[in-house]
This record gives sequence, structure tokens and C-alpha cells, in this order.
Amino acid sequence: MRIIVDAMGGDHAPKEIVKGSILAVKEYDIDILLCGKEVEIKKHIPQSSQILHKIDILNAEEVITNEDKPVKAIRSKKDSSLVKGMNALISGEGDAIVSAGNTGALLTAGLFIAGRLNGIERPSLAPLFPNGDRFSLLMDAGANVDCKPLFLLQFAMMGKIYMEKIFNIQSPKIGLINIGAEEGKGNKQAIETYDLLKSSNLNFIGNIEARDILNNNADILVCDGFVGNIVLKLTEGVMTELMKQIKTELNKTTKSKLGGLLIKDSMKSLKGRYDYTEHGGAPLLGLKYPVIKAHGSSNDIAIKNALKQAKLFLDNKVNETIIEEINKGGDLN
Amino acid sequence: MRIIVDAMGGDHAPKEIVKGSILAVKEYDIDILLCGKEVEIKKHIPQSSQILHKIDILNAEEVITNEDKPVKAIRSKKDSSLVKGMNALISGEGDAIVSAGNTGALLTAGLFIAGRLNGIERPSLAPLFPNGDRFSLLMDAGANVDCKPLFLLQFAMMGKIYMEKIFNIQSPKIGLINIGAEEGKGNKQAIETYDLLKSSNLNFIGNIEARDILNNNADILVCDGFVGNIVLKLTEGVMTELMKQIKTELNKTTKSKLGGLLIKDSMKSLKGRYDYTEHGGAPLLGLKYPVIKAHGSSNDIAIKNALKQAKLFLDNKVNETIIEEINKGGDLN
Repeated sequence: MRIIVDAMGGDHAPKEIVKGSILAVKEYDIDILLCGKEVEIKKHIPQSSQILHKIDILNAEEVITNEDKPVKAIRSKKDSSLVKGMNALISGEGDAIVSAGNTGALLTAGLFIAGRLNGIERPSLAPLFPNGDRFSLLMDAGANVDCKPLFLLQFAMMGKIYMEKIFNIQSPKIGLINIGAEEGKGNKQAIETYDLLKSSNLNFIGNIEARDILNNNADILVCDGFVGNIVLKLTEGVMTELMKQIKTELNKTTKSKLGGLLIKDSMKSLKGRYDYTEHGGAPLLGLKYPVIKAHGSSNDIAIKNALKQAKLFLDNKVNETIIEEINKGGDLN
Repeated sequence: MRIIVDAMGGDHAPKEIVKGSILAVKEYDIDILLCGKEVEIKKHIPQSSQILHKIDILNAEEVITNEDKPVKAIRSKKDSSLVKGMNALISGEGDAIVSAGNTGALLTAGLFIAGRLNGIERPSLAPLFPNGDRFSLLMDAGANVDCKPLFLLQFAMMGKIYMEKIFNIQSPKIGLINIGAEEGKGNKQAIETYDLLKSSNLNFIGNIEARDILNNNADILVCDGFVGNIVLKLTEGVMTELMKQIKTELNKTTKSKLGGLLIKDSMKSLKGRYDYTEHGGAPLLGLKYPVIKAHGSSNDIAIKNALKQAKLFLDNKVNETIIEEINKGGDLN
């Protein structure tokens, strides 16, 4: 098994990406194809290493940055690490791809170069989202801003297979993000999706109200990519803003400053609960090949875990199972 | 000027509602018509009071609760404080109405009994939302879950007039809640609304990303009611969850417990920043009469401020100005 890595994508590329790839090669039974500027990549590979034979480099001189417009970048930067990596994937030089770079560009390259699985209407970006003391899958988190109810039903189906295969959660509970708990609540899309989910063979537990998104019973939270992206970013924004305001408040008096010092460890521990590095990246479900989006600020550990995730995706035949489910046809209904 | 008050709506009804109404009568030059169970209302009005002549009671034996389905409740509970109050409004027994009860029922009664202003496609619920160290108007917060871009343009126009007239913010900045900052981002609705806002005479400052909703330059945040309701409830949910988790963390060691004691005042002061009581309620803009939704957990001060808001709405001719703007016709374009 060989996994392709976009070595130039991410805030700490290529250093942390290469380091993480080396960690993964040492820990798991995989080979790696690093795509990017060969000269720069080589700086971070110790030439004495015993795993050199398991790592190849595919030179690519261009880099797609976060400022690049996805579609334009994929069309014009043919010699970029992402485009060359994706092309290597479809020509069989690797079995999966991991990138911590521009999310939109990865989605675009995934859709236009790798392509959708037959029968899947839209691929879905499915990050893990904090839920009480565990994590749920949020899908779609921004790949599809305009959705039909059928797309959302397929997201739920793919999410179910992913949670079963990767996290060993059998018959995962599926919730629909909505503005009210009862059946019949929501906009046209939510109401129609509710009906589809209810009459499917999925373990649908009903609507999840926005106020409960951080603490509910669902293993998979379904919504369209516009709402999903707002949920993801707003949660991040509220936490950041609240932490900032707490800091400001604690700096106001000597007493509160002292209190602030005493609670420092607790706040760190709290922050750890939202640590993404342990959880690898977000899969883009519904493409012909496993495509994993690692967090933009990924360090070596996060990359190692994203590579583990790609390996599990392949080992556990996630795509093969999605195809089976699709081929069963009426099974969703 | 006489303002109608749904004395039975809200978690602390009728006591706090009646107390708040008395405070308002004492402080502002208004009369009050309290709708609800006369016997219960009277318990909270000191019979020695010098303002008795400014307070009337309209007896209504039924109560619409938060568990009631809005449309059904409005149709079947004809003797409820809300329905009788709304009917008193349109028959000229008062100039505005305030309720802290079931939001959906108030919206429904507003729409079906009071009715829309001519030319307004949909009324919009417009609460104040924390933004840095001030507040912005969030609209729509849940009155319209399925919107056309034109509705959102009208929300912005009504919000502008409201912010100018009530808060004296001239040419308020209007932002569109979206999943990216640049033009061209978002779903079909957001892209089309962007174009409408851009070519209007409003002070449109572009997209506001979800991560910046709690801290941005806009005075008015525009979105459809589905997204708005999710923004409102998710923000509340994330704050509640984070505060709960901080508490749990601080309870773990003696050191952090001590720290927790020392920062108690600071955390209280922080909570005060999000205090709704000072800001009255959320207007339902676009109806033929001023309709103010006070927070469900309103105490007497919150009700007093909601009544002040209704008075300002009338004093400053918000509805008359909206009609003027609509009559100018092409002015928005």
C-alpha cells in the first residue's frame, strides 16, 4: 500500500508533512509518495534513515496556496504538488492521497481529477466534530453548499459506513441538524431530508437542535455544506472569542490574575479536548479514491494520524462497501 | 400612547411581566393594557399605586405555552392572552404589543392577525446579537426558514431604518453571513443576495464569515431564518457547553478550585456582557404594528426595556419610514 502525500500543503509544509510521513512509515506498514519540491523535501529526510526505500519523491515545482482560487488553481497549476499528486493517484502510483493544503482546491481536484463513485451524487467533507467527551462526524462541512435532500441521505449512508469501518461504531446514530427538535420543523430541505432519513434503513434519531450540536446523542450530524461550514466556523469563532474575553477579564485585577495562573493547567486540559491532531483529517467521502484533508495547521503527529486514517480507509474497504450499498439500490428506502 | 402586554407569556409570567409594566409606566409616558387572567394579574398590582389609571386589564382565560404548536394555538385558543392582545391591537385599543411568550405563536399571530406592511414580502425577527463590545442586529433569526434573495434585501432595508431610528446609528453597516469573505462565495442564495445588496443604496460591507460573527464590523447581519436561528442557538449552545466544561475542569484539583474562586467575579462580569435584559426584545419588523418579542426568561427590567423599545419604535416612526422607503420603489436598486 502506497499513500500519496501533498508535501507542500499546510501551514507547516513541507517540514512537518515530511516528518509526519516518516513517522507513519516507521509505525505502519505503508509506503509514501511525497509530492512537491524535491530539493526542499529532501532537506527533511535524514539520508541515514533505514526507511528510505519506502519513501519516494515526485517532483512538483508549483504550490497551490490558501489564497489561490480552487478551480483556477487546479486548471492552471498543472505542476503543483496537489495536481501532480492527484494525477499520480488516478494513474495507480498510489492508493490514497493526504493533503493539509487549500481545502477548496483539494475538493476541486478530488471531484474533477479523481471523480465521484458511480451512483454518488456529491462527495462530502466529513470532519470529526467535538460532541460531549467524544467526537461525531459532521457532514457535509462545506463541499456542497447547495444540496438536495437525496444528497444528504447519501451523506448519512456514507458516514454510517465510515463510522462502522474506521471507528467500529455499529449502526451509528444519525441526527439531522435543524432549528427544532420535533418532526416537521425546519426549512423545506430539512423537512424533506427528515422524511428520507426516517424511511431509510439508517439508525436515524431525528433532529438535533443547533444549541445541542456540541452535546447530543448522534454519531453523525447531517446538514448541507453551507450550514455545516457555518457550524464548524462559528463554533471555532465563539470558542476563540470567549477564550479571548476570559483572558481580558482575568487580566483586570490582581486577584483575577492570580486566579488565572492557578487555572492555567485546567484551561490547557480543556483545550486538549478539542485537539484535532489525534484524529487525523477529514475524509472526502464519495470519491473513487480515499482523499483525506488534514488540518491546515497540522504538525507531524497530525499528518501521521491522517496517514493512518488513509490506511484504515483502504484496509477496511470503505469505498468497496459504499459501492455495495449503492448497488443494493432500493436498500436506502 | 398605549402598549399592549401579553401578561401570560414568558417563564416568569405574570409576575415579572406585570412588575416590568408598572416600572415602565412610572418611567415613560405610556399607558398599558395587560392581557391575561385578570385575577392573577391583579395580585401583582399594588392597589395603592398612583399609576392605576394608566393600567388596564383585558381578561383572557387561556394561555399559549411554549409547548403549543403556533398555528394550531392561534386558531384554537381564541381566548388566550396573545390572541386577544393581538386582536386588541388591530382594533385600535393599543399602538404596539410586547410578548415574552412562545416565539412561533407570536410570529404566527403577527403575520395572520396584524398582517404585513404593504410591499414587504416577509416580516423578520431581529434580535440584538453580541458583537465584540457592542451588539448587532441579526436578521432573520427564525421567522422565515425559506427565503428568496429579495426577502434578505428587504430585511437589510428594514434593519437599517430600525438601527437609525432606535439606536441612532446612521447608515449602519450591513454584512451578509456567508462561508467565505470574498465576493462569489456561498450558496446560490448568498451569491444572489450579495449582488442585490451590492447594487442597493445600503451601506453593504460584504460577507461576514461565520468565524467572525461574534466580532466584526457590521451593525446588521443578514441571513435567512434557518441559518439565523442556527447561529443564535449554536452560539448559545457553545457558550453554555464551554462554561460547563470550564466548571468541570476547575473542580478537579484543589489548586484549580482556588483559582476558580478567585476568578468568580471576572466570569460574572463576562456573563454580564451577554446580558439581554438591558436591550429589551427583538422586534418583528415588517408588520403593520410594532410587535416586540421579549426574551422568554425576561424579568421585570427586561420587560420594562422591551416596553421602552416599543415606545421608541412608535416615537421614531419606524413603520412609517419603512413604508416611505418601500414607496420610493426602485430606491433599493
